[in-house]
Amino acid sequence: MQTPKKIAIVGSGLVGTLLAIYLKKRGHQVDVFDRSADIRKINFSGRSINLVMSNRGWKTLEDIGLREEIEKIGIPVDKRAIHKQDGELIYQNYGKDGECIYSLSRGVLNKKMIDLAEQAGVNFKFEQKVWDVDLTTATISIGETERGEWTTEDYDLTFGSDGAFSRIRHRMQRQSMFNYSQEFLEIGYKELHIPANENGTHKLDKNSLHIWPRGKFMLMALANLDGSFTCTLFMPHDGENSFESLKTKEELVNFFGEYFPDTKDVIPDLVEDFFKNPTSYLVTMKCFPWTYSDKVALIGDACHAIVPFYGHGMNAGFEDITVLNQMIDKFGDDWANLLNEYENSRKPNADAIAELSRRNFMEMSSKTADEKFLLQKKIEKWFSDKHPEKWMPLYSRVTFSLQPYSEALAIGDRQNEIMEEILKIDKIQEKWNSEEIENLILEKLNAKY
Amino acid sequence: MQTPKKIAIVGSGLVGTLLAIYLKKRGHQVDVFDRSADIRKINFSGRSINLVMSNRGWKTLEDIGLREEIEKIGIPVDKRAIHKQDGELIYQNYGKDGECIYSLSRGVLNKKMIDLAEQAGVNFKFEQKVWDVDLTTATISIGETERGEWTTEDYDLTFGSDGAFSRIRHRMQRQSMFNYSQEFLEIGYKELHIPANENGTHKLDKNSLHIWPRGKFMLMALANLDGSFTCTLFMPHDGENSFESLKTKEELVNFFGEYFPDTKDVIPDLVEDFFKNPTSYLVTMKCFPWTYSDKVALIGDACHAIVPFYGHGMNAGFEDITVLNQMIDKFGDDWANLLNEYENSRKPNADAIAELSRRNFMEMSSKTADEKFLLQKKIEKWFSDKHPEKWMPLYSRVTFSLQPYSEALAIGDRQNEIMEEILKIDKIQEKWNSEEIENLILEKLNAKY
Repeated sequence: MQTPKKIAIVGSGLVGTLLAIYLKKRGHQVDVFDRSADIRKINFSGRSINLVMSNRGWKTLEDIGLREEIEKIGIPVDKRAIHKQDGELIYQNYGKDGECIYSLSRGVLNKKMIDLAEQAGVNFKFEQKVWDVDLTTATISIGETERGEWTTEDYDLTFGSDGAFSRIRHRMQRQSMFNYSQEFLEIGYKELHIPANENGTHKLDKNSLHIWPRGKFMLMALANLDGSFTCTLFMPHDGENSFESLKTKEELVNFFGEYFPDTKDVIPDLVEDFFKNPTSYLVTMKCFPWTYSDKVALIGDACHAIVPFYGHGMNAGFEDITVLNQMIDKFGDDWANLLNEYENSRKPNADAIAELSRRNFMEMSSKTADEKFLLQKKIEKWFSDKHPEKWMPLYSRVTFSLQPYSEALAIGDRQNEIMEEILKIDKIQEKWNSEEIENLILEKLNAKY
Repeated sequence: MQTPKKIAIVGSGLVGTLLAIYLKKRGHQVDVFDRSADIRKINFSGRSINLVMSNRGWKTLEDIGLREEIEKIGIPVDKRAIHKQDGELIYQNYGKDGECIYSLSRGVLNKKMIDLAEQAGVNFKFEQKVWDVDLTTATISIGETERGEWTTEDYDLTFGSDGAFSRIRHRMQRQSMFNYSQEFLEIGYKELHIPANENGTHKLDKNSLHIWPRGKFMLMALANLDGSFTCTLFMPHDGENSFESLKTKEELVNFFGEYFPDTKDVIPDLVEDFFKNPTSYLVTMKCFPWTYSDKVALIGDACHAIVPFYGHGMNAGFEDITVLNQMIDKFGDDWANLLNEYENSRKPNADAIAELSRRNFMEMSSKTADEKFLLQKKIEKWFSDKHPEKWMPLYSRVTFSLQPYSEALAIGDRQNEIMEEILKIDKIQEKWNSEEIENLILEKLNAKY
C-alpha cells in the first residue's frame, strides 16, 4: 500500500480519467481538472476519428475490472472492408478467428469513464483552466485566461494528461535539457457522417473498418452503436486533390462522384457536413523527460501524441497506465524512482508506435489497393497459420499482443525484409503457398534470427 | 527602392544589429528592442565561446561596407594547434596559404556593432521586454514580466532575432502546421580563462585555435585582443569525466593534471573559474515556417540554433541577412513573397549546418587525436593542392567558400566515402602521396560525379 497522497490530474480525457480510477483505488485523493464543461451535460461535439480499442487498451481496463462495462458500448471489428474505386469490395481479416478490435465513439466512451471514475470516488473539477505548474512543488495555477488572475492549489503530485497541447508540458519545455519536437503532417482530416437506416440498422457492414484507399488520400468509416458511422476523410491540406482544392459544392460533389462513387447513397449530408465541419490537423509530438522529480509527470498524448493511422493513440495512453501501475507495485512510496523507471521504460515504445503510426498512412491509403501488398498479406497469413510460433504479422503484434511496441517494430522490419525477398521470386503469384516458399521463409528466419 | 516601413527587430545581438543596419540603409525606420541593458554601459559578463568569423560572415559585412571596421577587432586564426595528452603539439592548417578565420570576442564585437548601427540611424530600445507579437498585425507586446501589465507598439513588420529561446517564435509555435524541435546535447560547456602575460602578450600562439582533444571531452582556447584567451571546456553533464563528477577542488585539479597537464601554468584561476562559472547547455533547435505573411519573420538563432562545433552560428545568421537582402533586391515591396522565398531557400541550408555542427564535435574531440584522421587530412590537402578544381575539403567548403551549406554537406559525404576507401588500401601510410593514389582518387571522382 502506498502512503495516500493528494494528486491532481490535469485533463479529463480517456487517459486522465482512467489514471484517476487507478490512483483512487490505490488510496490517493484524486482531483481531475478540465478546462471544458462536463461533457455529460453538454451537447458534446466530440469532433474525432472513432476510436478502436485493442488488446493493450483492454488489458488496462481488465486489470481494474472495467472491461465488461466498456465492451457493452463497443462494436467488434474483425476486418478491413476495402472499397475499390471500381466498386469492388475486398475483405481482409485483421487477425485470426475471434481476434478483433472494437469501434468506440470517443464521446460515449469518455462520458462512461467519467461516470465510472465518479463512482470510484474521484473528484472532477470542470471548467477550471490549469495554466501552469510549479515543477518543484506540484502546485498548479488556475484562472479564466492565460493573462488574467490565477489562483493556486497545492498538491503532492500533478499529472499532465492534457493532450498534445499540454500546458503541464509547456512548463517542462522551458527547462534546460528538455527535448521536444512537434511535426505536422501535410495531411489533414475532416469528419463526415453516415446516418443509420430508418430502422436503426447500419448501412454498411458494422463489423468492418471501411477504407476507400486512393493513394494520397482516403476515406474511412467506423460504426457507432446507434446505427450510424463516423467517416473521416484524410487528404492533403494543399495541392491537387486537397481540402484547399475543394472550394465549391460542385467541386466537392464531382470529387466524391469520381473517387468515392459508392458513398453517394450513404452520406446524404456530404455538402453540408463538408463545409460546416472544420479541417483538423495531424501532429506527431515527442518529448523527454516526461517527469520531474517526484512531483510532476506527463502521460498519454501530453508526452507522445501520434497520428491516428494505427488506431493506437488511446491504446498507447492506456498502456502508460499499465506500466505506471507496475512501477507502483515495484517501487511503492519511492515516487522519484517510480516515475523515472516509468518514463525510461515507456519512451522507446512511445517512439516506436509513433513511427508505426506514421508509416501506416501509406499502408492504409496506398498499399491496401495494391495487388502485391495483398499477396504479401496472404502469404504472411498462410505462413503464420502454419507456424504461429515463428511468425506473427506486425499488425497482430501491435494490436493483438502486448509485446513492447519497440520490439514489434524491430521484428516487423525484419519480417518485411524477408517478404520483400519472397515477393521478388519468379511466378510467386502461382506458388505463394507451396512447400518451396514455406521452406524458403523458414530458412531465411533461421539464418537471421 | 522599397517603400519605407516601420520595422521592429526583437533582439540586439549580432544578427539583429546587423539586420538593423541593412534595413536602415534600405530606408526603413528601424527600432531594435532588447530585454537587457545596453551592453556598452554595463559590465558585460558575456559568457560565451569565442566567435569565429569566416567567409560567409565577412561577405555580409563587406556588402554593407563594414568589413574593415570589424577586422580591426579580430585575430586571424589559420590553424588548429592540437595539444596531445603526452605534451606533443601538432599544427594543422585550416586551408590554403592566407586562408584563415578570425577570433572575435562576442562582447567586443556586439558593442562595436551597436555603435555602428546607431551611427547608421537605428533606434535601440534597451530594457524593453517583448513578450508577444500579433502575427496578423506585427504589433508587439512589451512589459516588465510575463504575467504583468503589457503595453503594445504597432509596426508594419517585426523580426525576431531573439535567439534560441525566441519569444517571437514562441508565438508562431502555437499555430497549427508549425514544425518545431529542440534537442539538447549530453555535453555542456564551461568558460575558463587564460590571462595575458604581464607584458600584454599571449601565453600561447594567438593565431591558432587550441584544442585538447580527449575523446568524450575537450578543452579549446581562442585568443582575445587583450592578450588573454577564452577557454571552453566541453564535457558530458553526467557520468565518468563529467561536470557532475568534478565536485571538489581536488577532483578538479587531479583531472586537469591528468588530461590537460600543459594548462597548469596558463590557467592560474582554474579552481575559482570552474566553480564560479555556470555550466551551460548546448541545444539544436529547428523549426518551420520562419515567417508569417508579410508581418513577422525569424532570423538567426531564433529559427536555427546550432551547436558551436563548426563555429558557424553567427556566420549562418549573417548569411540569412545576405539571402534576405538578395530577396529584397528581387521582390522589392512584395514582402509576402520576399519572406516566403527567404525561408524556403534558407531552410535546407540551416538544416545542413546544424548537421555539420553536430558531427564536428566528434571531429574536434576524437578525430583530431587520431592518426588515421590526420593522414586523411594530409591526403586531402595534398590532392586538393594538385587538383584544386576537383577537390575542396569539406572544412574549406563550409568555411572559406560561399557554397550553400546543403551542397557542401552532400559533396562532403561523397568525399568521405572516397577517403574511407583510400584509407583501407594496404600500406597507405607509405604511399599516400604516390601517383597510384592520385590516379585512384581521380578515377573514383570520375566514376561517381
